[in-house]
Amino acid sequence: MSEPRAMQELSRTEALQRLGSVPFGRVVFTRRALPAIRPVNHVVLDGRVIICSHEGAAIVGVVGAQDGVVVAYEADEINPAERSGWSVVVTGLARIVDDPEDAARCKEALHSWLAGEMGYVIQIEPEIVTGFELRRAWPPGP
Amino acid sequence: MSEPRAMQELSRTEALQRLGSVPFGRVVFTRRALPAIRPVNHVVLDGRVIICSHEGAAIVGVVGAQDGVVVAYEADEINPAERSGWSVVVTGLARIVDDPEDAARCKEALHSWLAGEMGYVIQIEPEIVTGFELRRAWPPGP
Repeated sequence: MSEPRAMQELSRTEALQRLGSVPFGRVVFTRRALPAIRPVNHVVLDGRVIICSHEGAAIVGVVGAQDGVVVAYEADEINPAERSGWSVVVTGLARIVDDPEDAARCKEALHSWLAGEMGYVIQIEPEIVTGFELRRAWPPGP
Repeated sequence: MSEPRAMQELSRTEALQRLGSVPFGRVVFTRRALPAIRPVNHVVLDGRVIICSHEGAAIVGVVGAQDGVVVAYEADEINPAERSGWSVVVTGLARIVDDPEDAARCKEALHSWLAGEMGYVIQIEPEIVTGFELRRAWPPGP
């Protein structure tokens, strides 16, 4: 249980598949020159990471204030008892989905967890995709 | 299972307790003007969040290059099936622990998960602490 672990890189394809296999992650952005992070639920649709938010939310203020802003999005599945699992980070341009038809399709796919009007659909284009898996360092895992 | 959820704020004390109850989280920082995030294991010691890293790691480059830099640290425990759980975010100054005695005590408490020499102990001073719990929106949870 307490053997050391090594990090093994995932390919872009593998990383995006894992991201799509889980329902939530964390959006990372800069707000008033400070690093900020918010857990949200997501869906991967047409190669984009889709999240929803509401009027007044920090992420909406940041993304909506400009014509897109670079954010990071992280998801992981880590088992602390086994010290096993993976983590994926996508970095790319986030922007509000303005097209009503596209936004409706995104909302339908997402099923937001939160009550209340989630008026804003945000898409993140995965430009940089990195991921790793935690494996036993020694002996090497299968 | 699919009822909407509401976010209920946690007090600072409650939030730090929850952070201390889990073994890992995610450190969030700015690197080359881009938001960056890395999952790491942590321990809360003397009111500080303690993480370890190694020569060449992005976080060591960022924190070590200056006499402290502001980062965010997030941990959560979320059950997607139940859509229940909590998330805590600490924002504060991160710096390398230089004092050899203090660094040794931190390493001892931390038990890094990763193999190899984790030469750098980093402490994050919790300046801003926020947290929330996901509860049923309606009917209100207990």
